[in-house]
This record gives sequence, C-alpha cells and structure tokens, in this order.
Amino acid sequence: MAVDRLLPTEEARDLLDLVRDVADKELASRVDEHERNETYPEGLFRTLGAAGLLSLPQPEEYGGGGQPYEVYLQMLEELAQRWAAVAVAVSVHTLSCFPLLEFGTPEQRERWLPDMLGGDLVGGYSLSEPQAGSDAAALTCKATPAEGGYRISGSKAWITHGGRADFYTLFARTPTGVSCFHAPGAVDGLTFGRPEEKMGLHGVPTTAAHWDDAFLETDRLVGADGQGLRIAFAALDSGRLGIAACATGLAQAALDAAVNYAKERTAFGRKIILHQGLGFLLADMAAAVESARATYLDAARRRDAGVEYSRQASIAKLVATDAAMKVTTDAVQVFGGYGYTREFPVERFMREAKVMQIFEGTNQIQRLVIARHL
Amino acid sequence: MAVDRLLPTEEARDLLDLVRDVADKELASRVDEHERNETYPEGLFRTLGAAGLLSLPQPEEYGGGGQPYEVYLQMLEELAQRWAAVAVAVSVHTLSCFPLLEFGTPEQRERWLPDMLGGDLVGGYSLSEPQAGSDAAALTCKATPAEGGYRISGSKAWITHGGRADFYTLFARTPTGVSCFHAPGAVDGLTFGRPEEKMGLHGVPTTAAHWDDAFLETDRLVGADGQGLRIAFAALDSGRLGIAACATGLAQAALDAAVNYAKERTAFGRKIILHQGLGFLLADMAAAVESARATYLDAARRRDAGVEYSRQASIAKLVATDAAMKVTTDAVQVFGGYGYTREFPVERFMREAKVMQIFEGTNQIQRLVIARHL
Amino acid sequence: MAVDRLLPTEEARDLLDLVRDVADKELASRVDEHERNETYPEGLFRTLGAAGLLSLPQPEEYGGGGQPYEVYLQMLEELAQRWAAVAVAVSVHTLSCFPLLEFGTPEQRERWLPDMLGGDLVGGYSLSEPQAGSDAAALTCKATPAEGGYRISGSKAWITHGGRADFYTLFARTPTGVSCFHAPGAVDGLTFGRPEEKMGLHGVPTTAAHWDDAFLETDRLVGADGQGLRIAFAALDSGRLGIAACATGLAQAALDAAVNYAKERTAFGRKIILHQGLGFLLADMAAAVESARATYLDAARRRDAGVEYSRQASIAKLVATDAAMKVTTDAVQVFGGYGYTREFPVERFMREAKVMQIFEGTNQIQRLVIARHL
Amino acid sequence: MAVDRLLPTEEARDLLDLVRDVADKELASRVDEHERNETYPEGLFRTLGAAGLLSLPQPEEYGGGGQPYEVYLQMLEELAQRWAAVAVAVSVHTLSCFPLLEFGTPEQRERWLPDMLGGDLVGGYSLSEPQAGSDAAALTCKATPAEGGYRISGSKAWITHGGRADFYTLFARTPTGVSCFHAPGAVDGLTFGRPEEKMGLHGVPTTAAHWDDAFLETDRLVGADGQGLRIAFAALDSGRLGIAACATGLAQAALDAAVNYAKERTAFGRKIILHQGLGFLLADMAAAVESARATYLDAARRRDAGVEYSRQASIAKLVATDAAMKVTTDAVQVFGGYGYTREFPVERFMREAKVMQIFEGTNQIQRLVIARHL
Repeated sequence: MAVDRLLPTEEARDLLDLVRDVADKELASRVDEHERNETYPEGLFRTLGAAGLLSLPQPEEYGGGGQPYEVYLQMLEELAQRWAAVAVAVSVHTLSCFPLLEFGTPEQRERWLPDMLGGDLVGGYSLSEPQAGSDAAALTCKATPAEGGYRISGSKAWITHGGRADFYTLFARTPTGVSCFHAPGAVDGLTFGRPEEKMGLHGVPTTAAHWDDAFLETDRLVGADGQGLRIAFAALDSGRLGIAACATGLAQAALDAAVNYAKERTAFGRKIILHQGLGFLLADMAAAVESARATYLDAARRRDAGVEYSRQASIAKLVATDAAMKVTTDAVQVFGGYGYTREFPVERFMREAKVMQIFEGTNQIQRLVIARHL
Repeated sequence: MAVDRLLPTEEARDLLDLVRDVADKELASRVDEHERNETYPEGLFRTLGAAGLLSLPQPEEYGGGGQPYEVYLQMLEELAQRWAAVAVAVSVHTLSCFPLLEFGTPEQRERWLPDMLGGDLVGGYSLSEPQAGSDAAALTCKATPAEGGYRISGSKAWITHGGRADFYTLFARTPTGVSCFHAPGAVDGLTFGRPEEKMGLHGVPTTAAHWDDAFLETDRLVGADGQGLRIAFAALDSGRLGIAACATGLAQAALDAAVNYAKERTAFGRKIILHQGLGFLLADMAAAVESARATYLDAARRRDAGVEYSRQASIAKLVATDAAMKVTTDAVQVFGGYGYTREFPVERFMREAKVMQIFEGTNQIQRLVIARHL
Repeated sequence: MAVDRLLPTEEARDLLDLVRDVADKELASRVDEHERNETYPEGLFRTLGAAGLLSLPQPEEYGGGGQPYEVYLQMLEELAQRWAAVAVAVSVHTLSCFPLLEFGTPEQRERWLPDMLGGDLVGGYSLSEPQAGSDAAALTCKATPAEGGYRISGSKAWITHGGRADFYTLFARTPTGVSCFHAPGAVDGLTFGRPEEKMGLHGVPTTAAHWDDAFLETDRLVGADGQGLRIAFAALDSGRLGIAACATGLAQAALDAAVNYAKERTAFGRKIILHQGLGFLLADMAAAVESARATYLDAARRRDAGVEYSRQASIAKLVATDAAMKVTTDAVQVFGGYGYTREFPVERFMREAKVMQIFEGTNQIQRLVIARHL
Repeated sequence: MAVDRLLPTEEARDLLDLVRDVADKELASRVDEHERNETYPEGLFRTLGAAGLLSLPQPEEYGGGGQPYEVYLQMLEELAQRWAAVAVAVSVHTLSCFPLLEFGTPEQRERWLPDMLGGDLVGGYSLSEPQAGSDAAALTCKATPAEGGYRISGSKAWITHGGRADFYTLFARTPTGVSCFHAPGAVDGLTFGRPEEKMGLHGVPTTAAHWDDAFLETDRLVGADGQGLRIAFAALDSGRLGIAACATGLAQAALDAAVNYAKERTAFGRKIILHQGLGFLLADMAAAVESARATYLDAARRRDAGVEYSRQASIAKLVATDAAMKVTTDAVQVFGGYGYTREFPVERFMREAKVMQIFEGTNQIQRLVIARHL
C-alpha cells in the first residue's frame, strides 16, 4: 500500500506519483533478477536520469529539479522500497555532486554540473581507504602537485558504483592537507578492484580503486587545496539524510510485506495478525518506521529552512538505520521459516539493512557527532 | 538550553517565547516545593488561563487561541519541561473540552465554552472506572433517565484534577449505551476519594469520584445518547498527542539536566561527557528525544491538515512515552548516586515518566490501536 | 580463544578437548567452502559418529555416550562455533532419536537404537508442514491404517537434512490423532523437494518431503497411536536446549572474531577496542554470550537432575537465540565495511543466527510456552 | 510462589527454607511500614545475625556458616524478594568483612572476626567520596601517620548503613597510597551526615561521613600500607555478586506480583494474562529473571571452584541489575494505574531497582571491567 505522505505542494504530490510509477516499472520489476544474479542493471540509471530523478534537489539553473530536500528524500524512500541498491546509488550520486555545487568555482559548475545533473552521468564518492574508514583524517592516498595538475597515487576503498560511475568525487592528500577532486571515471593509471562480495546490495558494485600516478588537471581541484575534510564533512550531513531515507524505505517495504503476509497466513485458527503477540510486534515495527520517517523529515525541513541540522542529520541516520535493521529482522520473523528463504523478499531486506548502519559514518560515528553537538 | 524549534509562523515563535517566560516564572520556581510536599498550586491554573495557555488550540470564536496543534503541543512540551503534573493537567483540560467542542449543540457551546476556554474553568476527564481501565466499554457507572435529566450513580477512577476541577467530562451508561456528559465540578451526590498516593505527579491530585444519585439536567448530555464511546475514542486521539508532547518535554528536561551534569562532573581526569561510553549514552538519549518530538509533530501536522491521524497519534504516544521512560532512567544513571537523590530533579523525572506509559491508553492499548490500523 | 568452561568431571573436560580437536580438524577447515558453494559435506557426519559425537547424551546400553545434557550441550556449542549448520544437524539428530528412546518398546529400541546411536545413521525430524509450522496440531499428513501397517500421504516441510538423513521421525495424522513414526530415509512413495534457498546454513539441506501412499509397517509406530503430539512436545523441550547451545556457540564465535578484529584494527590513533564506545559494545556482546550460556546450562542441569525444565528450556531458547541475533549483528558492526563482506565470517554468522529465532518453535511460541508456565 | 532452586546439598535446601521463614516473619511483615515512613528497623540485623544470616559464606572457624557463595547469594535473593534495603545492607556487611578476612593478620582476624561474623556487629563500607565515585583512585580522604596510628581527615560519601553500622571498612590515602582500615563505628572526630533523601531503599540510611582528625590505632590498618585499592577491587568482585543476587530477588518479587495480578485482573472479558500481548510481556520478564539468576550463579560457582570470575561477576552485576530495572518497570505497567500507587508494591520495586544499576560500580564501570577482560 502506498505510504500516506504529507507533502508541501501539489507539484510534489505529482512528482511522487511519477516516482512510484517509474519505480514500479523500472525497479520493482528487475530487482529480484539482479540481486539474485549479482548483475548490474545496464541503462537503469540513464532511465532514472531521463526522468529527472538523479537531480531532484539541485538548483534548476544547472538542470536540477529544484525540489526541497523534504521531497527529494521521500523520492529516495520510494526507490528504496523497491530496490535499496539503486536508491543508495542515487543518494551517493547526490553526495558526489555536492562538493562541486557548494564549493566549485562558477567555471567548474558551468563546465560539469549540467552533465552531472542532466541525468547522463552518475557519480561515485571516494573518501574511504582500506586503513581509513571512520577515521577520514587518516587517509593516505596522495595527490602530488605536478605541472598543470596533480599526480594521484594510492588506494581507495568501499566505492559505491566503483568502476561503473562516470565520475568520482575523490579525496586525496596534498602537501597542504586533504583536498577534494572532481575526477573522471576513466583515466590512465586508475583501475578498480573486483566487486566486493557483499551480504547484499548486489545490483550495484562496491569496489576498491587503485590510483597509480594518474594525472588530474588543476581545475579538477574542488574548493581550496587542503579544504577537503571540511568539504567531506559538509557533504556527509546531506548524505546521511539520504541514507536515512533509504533505510526508511527499506523498513517500510519490510513492514508492508510482513503485514500482507500476516493478513493471509493462518495459525491456530485465525490470521496471524490477529494473534496479539504478533500484532504487537507489527505495531512496534510500524512505530519504528513512522518514527524514522518523521525524524529524517524533521532534519530535512531544517536543511530546507537553512538552519543548522548537523545533529539532526546524524540522529536521523542513527534512528532510521537502527529501525531498518530491527524492522527487517522482525519481518523475517513474521514469515517464520518462509522468511528465511529467497521465496519472499524479507531475507533480502534484512541483508540490505545491515550495511546502512555502517556506511556514510558508522552508527558509532553518528553517536560521536551527536555527543559533540550536545 | 532552549529547544531549537521549527515553528510555522512568527506569531508562534512569539507565543513560545511567552510560554517559556510564563513557565519559568510560574512553574519552574514552584515545582520543587509542591512536588515534594504534595501540595496543589493554588491559583496556578487561573494564571495559565489568564495568559491564554488553557485554550491555545481551540477556535477563536469561543475564546480559544486558534493555534494549530503543532504549536499547542510544543507549548505543552515547554510546560512539561518545567512541571510535568501541570502540563498533564493542561492536556487533560483540553481533552475535557473536546467533546463539547466537537459534539455539542450550538446552544451548549455558547453556554459553556467561553468560560471553559476563557481560562477560568479547568476541566477533568472521567472515563476510567476501578474495573474498567483500558477496557472502556466495560464501564458500569449509570446514568438513569429521570424527569428533566439523568441520575448518576457509580464510581469512577483515575481522575486527573479530581476534586479540584471546575467541570468533568463524564462517561456513564444510559439504557442506550455509553453516553457523554458535561458535568459540573460540584453537585449534590458527587464526592471524591482521597488523592491516590502516586509515585509522582504530586502537584495535581488524582482521585476517584463517587456518584450517588446525583442529578444532571438533560442539556448536560453531549452528543447523542449512546454515542459516548465514539466521542471518548475521538477525544483520545487528540489527548494522546498531548501526552506525547508532555513525555517529550519531560525527556528533554532529563536530557538537559544530564548533559549539564556531564559537562561539569569530572572522573578519571576529564569531564564525564568526554568519556565515550557516557557520550554515546547521551547521544542515544538525544536521539530518542528528537525522534519523539518529530514523531508527535508529524501526527499533529496531519491533524492540522485535516487528514486521518489516529494511527500516528497512537504511535506518537507509544514512541514518546517509551522514550521518556528510557531517557529519564538513563539520566539518573548519568548522575550516578547523586541522581538517586532529591538533590537533583532527575529522580523526579523518572518517577513522572512511568505513568505516561500507562494513562490515556496504556502502551499496550496503543499497540492494539496501531495493529488495527495496519 | 577457548571458552573457559565449568565442567562436572575430568572425563567431561577430556571429552571437550577431543571435541575441539575434531571440530577444528573436520569442521573449521571445511566450513567456508561448503557454506559458500552450498554443498553437503559428504562423510562428515559419519566421522562425527565414529568419534562418538552423535550420541553423547544417550544411554550407554544402546551405544550412547552416557553424558549429562550439561556436557552434551557444550559439545554442541563447540561445534556451532565452527559450523552452525553441522551443529544444528547434530541437535536435530538427537531430537530424532528422542521419541524412540523415550517412548519406544524394548523391541524397537533394540532393533534400531544401536544403529542410530552408533554413529552410522543420521536422523531427521519431520513435524512441520507447509500450512502447519508453529501450529503443530493443524498437521494434515495422513497415516491411514492398512494391512500390517500404515499408508502415508501428504506433504511435510522444513526438514533439516531432508533427503540426506538415514531415517526420519515422522508425525502424521491417524484416525485417532497425531501419531509418531520411525520412518526409513528411503521408501517407495517418499520423495524430497529441492533444497530450500535459505539465507544461511547452506551446508546441510532443508527440504520438503512428499509422501505418496508410502507404506510403513506397524512396528514403525512409536508410542501409542494418537500420542504423537505429546511425544513431539516432549522432544521439543530437549531440542530447544540443543538450539540454545548452537545459538550460544554461534554468538561466541562472532564475539571472538569481533574481539580479535578490535584488538588489531586501528582508528583515530589506537586499537578500536580501546575506544570506549566500541569497548562497551563488545562488553554488552560478551554479557549476552555468557548470560545465554548460563541460562541454557541452568536448564540442562535441571534436566540432568530430573526436575521439570520445560519453562527453562523455552527461556534458554529465547534468550540464547535473541542473543545470537544481536551479537552477530553487532559483530558485523565492529568490522565496519569489512564485516559486510565474505572476507570475514561475521556476515555468515549473522545470516545463520536469524533462523535460530525461528525453528524448533519460533520465539513467539517460546513466549507462549513460558507464559503458560507462569 | 517459592522459586524452584537447584541447590547443591540437602543442608542448603534446609537453610533456604529457614531463610524463607525468617524473611517472611521479620522482613515481609515490616517492610511496608519502614519503607513508607523511612524508619530504621531497630534490632532487625541483630535478629538476622542470631539466625546466622550475616555470615553465611564465611569460614566456620571464625563463626561463619561455611556455605558456598552459590548458596549465600540465593539467601540474599530471598531477602531481597521481601526487602531490598535489608538485603543490600547484608551484602554490604559481607563486603565489609572481606578485607579483614582475606588480608588481615591472624591477630586481627582473631580479635575482630568472631564479633563481626557472630551476628552482633553489622558493617559498612566506605570507599566513595563526593568527588570520587566510580573513580576510586581519586579519593582524597587522608590517613596521616601519627604516634601509634593514623589521623583521619576528609569526607566520605554514599555509605550504606552510615551512622548505624558498628564498624566501617574505610579507605583513605596514606603517604604510600590508598590504604584500608577497619574502623570503629564511633570514634572522636567522626560524624555522619543526614541520611540522603533517596528515591528508594528508605529502610536503611545512606549517609556521608566526616572525619576530622580522628585517631585509628596502627592495628586498624588492614593489609599493607598502600595496598588499599587492590583490596577494594578484590572485595568488589564478591560485592558485585551480592548486588546481582539482590537485583534478581527484586526482579523476582516484581514478576511474582505482576503474574498474580495478571491472573486476577480481568479486561475485555478475560484474565489479562490470557491476552497474548501481556502474556508475552510477562514471558520476557520471566526470561530476564531466570537468565539473571543463572548468570550470577554461574559466576558464583566459579568463585566457589576457585577459578577466575572477575569478568563473570561484572557481567552478572550488569545483566541482573538491568534485568531488575526492566522487570520492575514492566511490572508497574502490568498493574496499569494501580501499579503507579503505593497500594501495590511494584512502584517501590521500581524505585529500588534504579540504584542497583549505580552502586558498587555503575553499569558503565562494569562494562569497562568486562571490556578489559576480553
């Protein structure tokens, strides 16, 4: 059943209707095959881009949809209800556009943003390294100043859409500090590792990247030299909202599946949803989903209103991903033995939920951020 | 520190500033004395009424403030941060006005509402009975039709403001079914029990009421004869939002106290908030508070928008009161041994939180309501 | 690191040393390959049988090890630390022997038990049906009395070791009620479904079984005709302890992996176990593991002492499997992104833990059993 | 209903029967009056001492009962079921005897132990200070060497039985480090603060102590000068088991009260224990109680067996006190509004449970200890 959403405008309502249509047609119909076979959905992101779904919250002047985050995130949620891997990749694409949008020069924006937001190019975000996950400041990938640009050497890790994206927002260490680059997806000296064998999110690869003296021209530097960590952290506030929305959508999908099953399956002479023990479990799941949604929307509205929302973004990420882990695990429980098999989607949901507590800042990092804001 | 609230209008912001001033002056200054001595704050509700705080969400035509629930509930939250018993009584007053407002005839409204909303009269709500708490349909208090009215006989229980309120919204059984009455606070045949010896919320009494053939005139009947349960349940949706806001305010107060203490108290050579184990605990408390607030505000905005919000109200009540229980219990933990004494307010907060999981529908009843809406 | 166990005798200590050796050699070395490729470990159960590990708790007169449950369960736990699927299959084998041992006639015991306990035959347990999981009384598989025996028709589901076991303890409906049978693994009219595509426990298949007018001789009936449910429930008390032990072993393995990783991995300048936030998480995991073990051992000692332990068995199953779900999920968290990949075993542990909350009575069923014993 | 305990000997069973009789007669009958009026039960500890209940686990050669900790702790649990404040005081008495028993010279033991264990003298433990709670190493109370002894100056805090005990095991700072003293309950220069106004445990006072140049003779020093922290920490391992047992008894009492109520109270046409939602809540409460007991007994058996049990003691304290907090809070919930009043004991249980998470090492400290042992 469609989520009954409070949306700010008629336009937003129409937009969400469109999103549901596209998502039903393009995602729901293909998710099982690709997640099971671990294959990439060729062309799918181009389709989403053509429908305007890769740049909903960005400014219209560069080809974005000009929608508030409150609306953009609910789109992400709808995507995640059908296919979490795709929704996460869309969120990462948005994250990857953020630095150029916020810190790029007018020339850089004009040069690259229209393509990035037009829907033809999908982006990846490359901050983590094998020995620097939560601890971004420890990164060692080097950007050595050279004639007309920088030479990049080192290894990056955990890149969503790695080897498939058209560009990467790359963080590397210059003599001044950590710096941010808008890197092309293909360049001499750049190779990608084999896709990680993940527990879930199989439809979109996650890989390492190896930079071996690859050259990036000077105008690939985004923001000031040494300003990279500040950019990275600013981007993460928005990115965390994206993950919170993905997690909420995933949890909603698990709840819906569980409710439907509980209304059909009979035990001890009646539908299992009518057994109060199970009914209460479903009620708690519903409370977790609604509460997660309300929490990320509150943070999004703060962002839309232009007020500080960093603590709220971390809270939203923490609350929504913990909710997704709990709700998906309990959804399998509602299905009993059937839930433990691929016959129903809930086992997939549960495998997908786990990584949401980990990426874009583990939930331990979120607690650190929150505590610092108290 | 003042909560950084998203409010819909400038007027609402001014109003909340006023609320904080009144609450600091009238509530914060008196709460300790009355809660410790278990005495009633004479005149306080008249003061709140005079400031317009007893009828914030009601229509202006009858003297109400005409504010959306989104604003009204944040006022309740501010009151609860200072004095939960008073905030709860204000919420109950609003609940008591609801039936007349929604189901009363034009004559009834004109006759009684101006006084009820003007701030001079404070109301109580009398639905529960000793043998009918969660199970409202089992109530046995009788309203026997008589010449020109009804004769009321039976016992009611758990009346907030019992014996102190100026009027009571009473539910009693007529031959047709359960019916709702607007009863005066003093009438022949009506007596009140001794205040219950509660774990907390000492500033406002909770009592039983004994009706012994007391007479209510016909025009005291609110809504149709036999429509009482429908009225009661409709009222409860709004009432649950009130309790959710009170619980959130209580949790916020506990969080604030704990954060302040953790920034002052030193152990093992540094402020205890800097010990990550405690910092994470505080972060989880903050997440629970923000999430509770976002959840009740989401439900309130649905109510304000005129869409169905019954499930959301039950979710808000469940989430916010569970959050309050957890956050207040953990706040005592942050204070260590000191938290277990009356030297600091957190032990009071913890005692106050418990009842919020119980009244206006136990959290078990909320789960029943939610499950039925799935 | 080896668990520091309190064992009742020197013999038991030696036995556990042997178990660890066998488990290291036969299980730890093969688990990854078989779990990844979803292949059955041919010959493994024969090896375990030869080492005496398939009949540790059964009476010596029939070839069993004569060990108390307290010792047997700790063996299971050690197996589960290396390979949960195998440990579960051993537990199910024990469950399958129980009815014949407790309810069989002397003739039946002499005829079959020596082979069952000698280690050459591995058993399956066939109670569930597609429409009768938790609700065993609803089963419909029929055993129709016929000349010299019964004709079996119907479908069974969720059979651990289905199609691979040498015998099945089968429950089917006779005219009198539900009855228990000791069925051979191969008989005309018995076919098995394809292995279920499970989230985990890939090394041992779970299948449906289809009985199409298959014939079982009269002496295959275990206990009285119609006594089946009583037998099934009695067996389940012991079986639940087996699952509790498997879950504890799985949780222990996840804890050990997480602790080892946390002592090696560095972030923000020190080993992550030294960050208090993570240290506390590990402490909570350790508390859950130790508490789960103590809980099942307490129930086992009651069983060994010959006193009622049904409530304690359900509590042990509930507590230990919930602990396993929580601890394995948190173990992935400790590893961060690495934990989400097959590079480390914790993602497998998490997938394996989920089913433990479901089989041999879902944790909802356990709560029902516990509540009835209050 | 009496807890069905696994006890190691017939003697232990008889002993527990005696304990129940004494506890019913002396504790259950007086607890309400003293807890409500916050009065000290004069003579009660002498009665317990006369019955041998103040020295159950200590060696018989000094007048102790020579019982294993496994039995002693179950006695404590039975006391705590009736009156937590008394059980805690007995546990503290045992704690106070520990240093002399383990670290005293033969002369000291002969001089003092017979009276301490004989049941006439009750002890207090004085480690905490206003600015040194969890952080024992920060204590500042001074013991300055003087002719023939030490002069003690400084403030201590949170002394159970403060001002009432006959002797105190005192920790103070000598030039060498922290040292342990066996101090008399009355000595020139020693005064006690007013009883702390606690949330619960009103029957036994908790006070500060002020030492103003009080003199203690040299032979009051227990163990070597400077060995105090080692003694204190060794004592705490045993003390934590005592608190774990008290918490378990308290939780058991709350569970029993809730089950009894749920079997009597009717709603929606049947006993509320038969509503599955409430039945499951009670089942979870029962699981928490049994699991807490099993956990502390496992640690106790390790202590009795002479093996390392420090981690297990901290786990037992953590698990049992968290269980008590949860179970008592939920017990109030089972009673609904009635549970929030003094009419039933569950509100008292809840108030009493909170401090158990705090004293003898907050549960945060327990997690630190556990993490260090991983």
